[in-house]
Formats: sequence, C-alpha cells, structure tokens
Amino acid sequence: MNIVLFRDCQVRVMEDTVTNTEKYFGQFCLLLAAYTRKTARLRDKADKLVKQLIDFANTENLEMRTTLRNFAEDLAKVQDYRQAEVERLEFKVVNPLKLYGTQIKQTQAEIKKFKRVRNHEIKQLEKLEKLRQKSPSDRQMISQAETCVQRASVDAGRTTHQLEETVDAFQKQKLKDLQKILSDFVTIEMVFHAKAVEVYSSAFQTLERYDPERDLEDFRAKMHGVHRPHGPRDARPLTDTGPAAAAPWSLAQSAQSTMRSHRKAAASEDSSAVEDPVEDLRGQGQGLHH
Amino acid sequence: MNIVLFRDCQVRVMEDTVTNTEKYFGQFCLLLAAYTRKTARLRDKADKLVKQLIDFANTENLEMRTTLRNFAEDLAKVQDYRQAEVERLEFKVVNPLKLYGTQIKQTQAEIKKFKRVRNHEIKQLEKLEKLRQKSPSDRQMISQAETCVQRASVDAGRTTHQLEETVDAFQKQKLKDLQKILSDFVTIEMVFHAKAVEVYSSAFQTLERYDPERDLEDFRAKMHGVHRPHGPRDARPLTDTGPAAAAPWSLAQSAQSTMRSHRKAAASEDSSAVEDPVEDLRGQGQGLHH
Repeated sequence: MNIVLFRDCQVRVMEDTVTNTEKYFGQFCLLLAAYTRKTARLRDKADKLVKQLIDFANTENLEMRTTLRNFAEDLAKVQDYRQAEVERLEFKVVNPLKLYGTQIKQTQAEIKKFKRVRNHEIKQLEKLEKLRQKSPSDRQMISQAETCVQRASVDAGRTTHQLEETVDAFQKQKLKDLQKILSDFVTIEMVFHAKAVEVYSSAFQTLERYDPERDLEDFRAKMHGVHRPHGPRDARPLTDTGPAAAAPWSLAQSAQSTMRSHRKAAASEDSSAVEDPVEDLRGQGQGLHH
Repeated sequence: MNIVLFRDCQVRVMEDTVTNTEKYFGQFCLLLAAYTRKTARLRDKADKLVKQLIDFANTENLEMRTTLRNFAEDLAKVQDYRQAEVERLEFKVVNPLKLYGTQIKQTQAEIKKFKRVRNHEIKQLEKLEKLRQKSPSDRQMISQAETCVQRASVDAGRTTHQLEETVDAFQKQKLKDLQKILSDFVTIEMVFHAKAVEVYSSAFQTLERYDPERDLEDFRAKMHGVHRPHGPRDARPLTDTGPAAAAPWSLAQSAQSTMRSHRKAAASEDSSAVEDPVEDLRGQGQGLHH
C-alpha cells in the first residue's frame, strides 16, 4: 500500500500548487484590474481639473492666464502618460493573468484523471485484501486479483508520470510568467513615474516664473476702466511698479502666443512618445535602473 | 450719472473676480479632494495586493518566496510614499483651498455693502431728477436734494475706494496663493513620483535576479517526497540540472534570512524619510528639476 500512499502525497503537493495558483493568481488579477481602474479614475479627476484650470485661466489676466494654461497642459500631459499606463497595465498585466484560468483548468482536469485511476487501483487492492482474508486458499481468484492490481498499478504509475510532467511544465511556466508579469508591472509603473517627474519639473518651473505684479497692474487698470477718474493710483503709468511690469502688454501678448505654439509642438512630440509600442517598455525600464 | 455708471462697471469687474474665484476655487478644491481620495483608493488596492503577494509567497519555494517578499516590500514602500503624498495633498493643497471660502465671503460682504450705498446714491439722484422735472422752481427742495445727492456720492466714493482696496488685496493674495498651492501640488507629486521610480528600480532588479531553476528543483524534490521511489528523474542528484541549481538548499536558506533582515533595515531607514516634515518638500522639489 506504500506506493499508493506515496502517490497520494505526491498528488497533494501538485493539487496544492495548482489550487494556490488558481486562488492567488485570481486575486492578483482582480486586484491589479482594480488598481488599473483606480488609476483610470485618478486620470479622470485630473482631466476634469485640467478643464477647470483652462476655464479659470480664460477669466484671468495675461500672466496668470499663460501660467495656468501651461500648467494645465503639463497636467494634461501627465494624464496622457497615465492613460498609456492604464492601457499597458490592461494589456501586459491584467490580460495575461486573466488567460491563466484556462491553463489552470487543463491541469486540474489532469489531476482529476489521475484521481480516477488511483481510486481504481485502491479498489483492486481492497478486493485482493478481502480475498486473501476470506478465501486465502483460492489460489486462482487471488492470482486473478493480483493481475488486476498489477494492471491498475501500472496504469496509476503511468498516469502519475504524465501528471508529474504536466504539473512540472505548469510550475515552470507559472514561475516564469509571474516573473514576467511583475516585471512588466514594475516597468510600466517606472516609465509612468519617470515621465511624471519630467513633466512636473517643467510645470514647477512654469509656476516659479509667474510674477503676480503684472497681473495686478492689469487688474487695477481694468478695475479703473478706461476713465481712471479718481484715486492717486491712476496717476501712475502702468510700467511704474518696477522692472517686473516693464514689458508692455502688446509685447507680452506676442510672447504668449509664441510660447503657446511652442508648447503645443512639444506636447505633440511627447504624445507620440506615449504611443510607442508596448514592446518598447522593457528597454525603457532597463534604461532607468542602474 | 457718469460716475455711477462707472462705479457699476468697476464693481462688476470686482464682483466677477470674486465670483469666478468662488466658482473655480470651489471646483479646484472639490477636484483636488477627489484626486486625493482616488490616490488613497489606489494605495488601498496596492496594499491588498501586497498582502496577497506575501500570502502567496508563503506557499512558494525559497527563491520565489524571497523574490515575492522583497517585491511586496518594495510595493508596500511605494504605498508608504503614496500615503505621505495623500497627507501632504490634504494639508498643503486641499485645506488651503477649503479655507478660501472665508476670505471670499468677507469680500462678498464688502461688495454687498457697496451695493447698498450705491443704491442709496441712485435713489437720491432719481429724487433730484423728479424734483427738477415736477417742481423746477422749488429752489429750496432742489438744494436739499442736491445736498443729499452730494452726501450719498461722497459715501459711495469712500465705499468704492474701500472696496477697491479690499478687492486689490484679495486679488493679490489670490494670485500668490494659487501660485503657492499649485507649486505645492507639483512638488508633492514630483517627490512621490521620484521616490516611486527609485523604489521600483530596486523592485525591477529583484525580479530580474530571480532564477526559476532552483525553485523547480525544490518543487520536483517535494513532488517526489523523501521516498523518491520511481522515475528516471529521481536517480539524478539535485544539483544535476546545471549551474543555476548548484547552491545547496541550506546555504540558500541562510542567504535568504540575511537578505530579509537587510531589507527590513533599509525599509525602516526609508520610512523615516517618508516622515520628513512637509516644509522639507520645497527643497526636495527644487532639487529635482534642473
């Protein structure tokens, strides 16, 4: 009976492996899909913020308008990268985990097949035991039963061997796939975060350059209308508050439109980078770590 | 009547400014609070993934167990930084925007006060007009009405001047605050993304180092139990599949415990960095962009 017990033990190891894979890969799939969805929600909120920032920019004076538009463009660019992150996570992380279900089902079918063969072997052994106890002198019957046990044992041995090979291949594939899926996850995240740092650095500089003084002069002029009939403030020329306000309005306006078209070009250049083939990711990821 | 029309125009500029600020700062506050909440949800999902990864690691063989634990630790570290991001966004971005409500209410109260004074002025002017039409000869009444108009006009002028100063200060503060709040947002995001790149680089290396061969040998040995009674594979020594499986089990085990304690130390070092005072952010952010 030792060989049967051993096979039971063997199949328990294999069953546990497949069951654990089913359980945890299922969890990984659900959680990474949820993670991807939450990332998409974050992108949606930021997109709404971009829209509000642009709307608000249109109610502001030149400097703040330019600053807010540039800032909103950078924020939108980060969301483009987040969108690429979402698509890549779906494609390279969530989908491969989803497809794992099929592979697991096949291996579980092989385990069931083994169990059927093993139960047959046990029945033959039990039959032989009973015969040996009840009719120990019936040599012919015992010999027949022994042949049945032998046949069942050979069957079980062959099925065990097949199962072993299947589970071995399954385990090998599983370990490699998990390594690949997690590496892809890390690479996708790393590329996104690196791009975000890059874009936010530019956004930070945009905000640092902002000087409220010129806008305040514009605002005061608007508040006092074309008439400017009272108050000592109206006596001062617009360029009177220091070097910050020195650039005339018309000059600043043309500078703004130049900056806008320049940024647009930079954004479209970058968005082509966002659409890089996903296969490119590995290379990008490897470039990042040292 | 020109001066009154002009004041109407003036107050419309001021009213629009305050109304727009109320509308858009309210939107910014809601959207950035939602952005912060979604970030916290993302952290929650990743935390659950960390837990499942560790649970799964405990069902795996040595190499994958170590790899998954180290990977889970890195993923958890990113969530610690995300938690710091959430707290900083609440403190430096959402709260200041929330507090803006009070400032807006005060300025709106001043505008209302101006409107009352302005309406009084208009009434006095209308009264004077009527008198001039109905009783153009009643010099005394007209003179009285003229004094009333004059007084109302002086009042309106003074209130306009006060309002102008209030709105001027409001606008100045608003521009500076918006610049500060957006800069803080960018800095917080930039610090988080930079930390994430750093931690994921380490996670990537952990995954790259993983070699499934040793685990497969362990798995095969487990599958064949202590008996190893059949199959050609059992005849081979454990170290027979090439140089990858050369390290004996016991040696690998001690290497694992060393790695674990080392990583723990590194993680606690890093978590102290997460608790850096928020004031530190600006410096960190400035260090990042070039």
